[in-house]
Amino acid sequence: MSAGSRVHPVAEHQDTVRALLADSLQQRVRQRSLVEAAGRILAGDVTAPRSLPPFANSQMDGYAVRSAELAGPDGSTVELQAAAPIPAGAAAPALRPGTAAPIMTGAMLPAGADAVVPIERAQPDSFFDPADLAGARVLLPRGVPAGQFVRTAGSDIPSGTRALAGGTLLGPAQLGLLAALGIAAVPVLAPVRVMLLSTGDEVVEPGQDLAPGQIHDANTTLLAASLRDAGAEVVRSRILADSPADFRSALRDELSSGRADLVVTTGGISKGAYEVVRLALEAEGVEFFSVAMQPGGPQGAGRVDGVPFLAFPGNPVSALVSFEVFLRPALTALTGLPRPRPALSAVLDETADSPEGKLQVRRGLFRNGRVGMVGGPGSHLVHALAESNALVLVPEGTGRVEAGSEVTVWLLE
Amino acid sequence: MSAGSRVHPVAEHQDTVRALLADSLQQRVRQRSLVEAAGRILAGDVTAPRSLPPFANSQMDGYAVRSAELAGPDGSTVELQAAAPIPAGAAAPALRPGTAAPIMTGAMLPAGADAVVPIERAQPDSFFDPADLAGARVLLPRGVPAGQFVRTAGSDIPSGTRALAGGTLLGPAQLGLLAALGIAAVPVLAPVRVMLLSTGDEVVEPGQDLAPGQIHDANTTLLAASLRDAGAEVVRSRILADSPADFRSALRDELSSGRADLVVTTGGISKGAYEVVRLALEAEGVEFFSVAMQPGGPQGAGRVDGVPFLAFPGNPVSALVSFEVFLRPALTALTGLPRPRPALSAVLDETADSPEGKLQVRRGLFRNGRVGMVGGPGSHLVHALAESNALVLVPEGTGRVEAGSEVTVWLLE
Repeated sequence: MSAGSRVHPVAEHQDTVRALLADSLQQRVRQRSLVEAAGRILAGDVTAPRSLPPFANSQMDGYAVRSAELAGPDGSTVELQAAAPIPAGAAAPALRPGTAAPIMTGAMLPAGADAVVPIERAQPDSFFDPADLAGARVLLPRGVPAGQFVRTAGSDIPSGTRALAGGTLLGPAQLGLLAALGIAAVPVLAPVRVMLLSTGDEVVEPGQDLAPGQIHDANTTLLAASLRDAGAEVVRSRILADSPADFRSALRDELSSGRADLVVTTGGISKGAYEVVRLALEAEGVEFFSVAMQPGGPQGAGRVDGVPFLAFPGNPVSALVSFEVFLRPALTALTGLPRPRPALSAVLDETADSPEGKLQVRRGLFRNGRVGMVGGPGSHLVHALAESNALVLVPEGTGRVEAGSEVTVWLLE
Repeated sequence: MSAGSRVHPVAEHQDTVRALLADSLQQRVRQRSLVEAAGRILAGDVTAPRSLPPFANSQMDGYAVRSAELAGPDGSTVELQAAAPIPAGAAAPALRPGTAAPIMTGAMLPAGADAVVPIERAQPDSFFDPADLAGARVLLPRGVPAGQFVRTAGSDIPSGTRALAGGTLLGPAQLGLLAALGIAAVPVLAPVRVMLLSTGDEVVEPGQDLAPGQIHDANTTLLAASLRDAGAEVVRSRILADSPADFRSALRDELSSGRADLVVTTGGISKGAYEVVRLALEAEGVEFFSVAMQPGGPQGAGRVDGVPFLAFPGNPVSALVSFEVFLRPALTALTGLPRPRPALSAVLDETADSPEGKLQVRRGLFRNGRVGMVGGPGSHLVHALAESNALVLVPEGTGRVEAGSEVTVWLLE
């Protein structure tokens, strides 16, 4: 191996991946309806086109009043004529002096009114039949401050101010705000389109029969689900044949469609004699090397026809760890998606050895501040991976972690 | 109000909602491909149809050997004839005595071989050209234990044992395991289908113009996004007119299609004079009452034509809090989706008053173990909601929480 003799520190390769994507990733902006915008990143600031609330309205079911007419000592009452109720969804007629208008929560405060008396404090304490208001009079308590139980226009957000900042992740609350503002569509960052290629003559699609020596492809499923969880779009997940020339030409064909922002391969990059990805792309300027990490040591990074290219090793656990340690944080940093993994400190249940010169990433089960290892360090242990809910990080420079010591875990769920 | 005079404790209404769904929710099982099964709950145990690994294979690039031929003192070597390399994805021919077969990571161990010597420990320490093996000999170290660098068949999971338990949430790792086992489709719980109905004459769809007194509907967007995040399917989100008879007949029409497992309405259930949901359904056996919670006090629950029915209040924050406190935990308990909200203890930044007889749910910004309130307690403050990342819970019986005291927060992100 040429460029492969130096072992790259984990942090260096993290920087490499991030810089590669920062230089080459095309961030596309698309106008999307609120339903389609869910879970995506807002591509620019949104200014409130109107105030919220759009008009002064009642916070309670009760009577809209002129507070000046209810001035006077607490404990005494004033009798007012009951006006027609204010219907929801309509402009309220102005409140005539000497009257109190039945008003429901959220209904527009009539001109002239500046306070609301809750129905519970009125006598009678239930509303009159709207069909029979002739001569209806209501007793209301004096001493009502102006503004009582009134939601003033713009008290949540005034028109013309920034409602949401560009870069905001659009969850239910943010989408609800946009809807309340009357906005039906917003510009969002389009998903990063990842071309996912699984290599290896021994690899067969799930659902197909196995010949001796063959295995089912777990990487495509595992990484495609991880990428989709991370907000990316998986545009292709073909299994390519184990010939460098075939691989190169198939990859070029795929890239010519312009549908991929990033290519990720699994397998074919270690020191073996038949490493198709390395053999196909080493001469094209993609670099292949070892990173001080276990599993996931063999890595490749570069560009193919200008498109960022990452090569992960072929064992499922190695592929997942590569994604979690290198690609996922770079996507978060550059696109705002996905959210960073919660990194927690946990007390280790059992003593574990680790290769001192490498970051070791084990699978663990985290519960109530403690973590136990699930399965051994082997990168083929996909059942153990499926039984775990965390990655356990044993840093470079540590040859052994004792039971009861603190380790960092990344929660996978 | 008839049944509405008693204030229901929060825990009682949580139990009511859970029991209502437990009695009436139809859990449907569907066979789904691995892509479609992502994020869903496995409907039954999955037994491994084969072992993983399916055959003994090499953990390293190196030479497959008979360890007995390499017995002897450490430090000395033995010379063996280099056999033809073992291709990946094929049945390996048996290893002839006196030979060592080049083998790549993951390739099948040949019959007769029981250990692997890494290429780095061989002389020469790179593989021969496969086209030029005549007379090729390799020096290998003695003292190789049987089983060295061999992944035995079934060491991750043996055929016939349980691979995944029913009720498991299918994330990337679990889907990867299923793929590795060759399983292309699995039975999963279908999403709960929720019919979402927003009421109110004052309510207008986002994107449409507002007449005076009208507001844009935020609830449908807010709750639909929340429900989808929680793994549910939103089958309908119509805004119905403010007439009890129209509401009742429209609801019956919708329910007759059989497409809803649950109906959720917003608005129309408080003490006002024109409360369409209450007026339409009180006589049908749906109960309406107050819960000791702010916001979200008015609630309704029951069945309409046998379908579970929940009525939430109409302000956006009240609707969201109702979902988070009552419906979301019930869905988690009964269907396994969504994951429970992380409940954390946080130090409160500022002193806050709370109605002593109620659970108060405020919006907050949680950072590094501290939480500050965002906006006031008003249930219309949807901009404040969009700026928050947590709900802050001030329990019943607490009239004031002091700055610096510990409160419980539910992380919304």
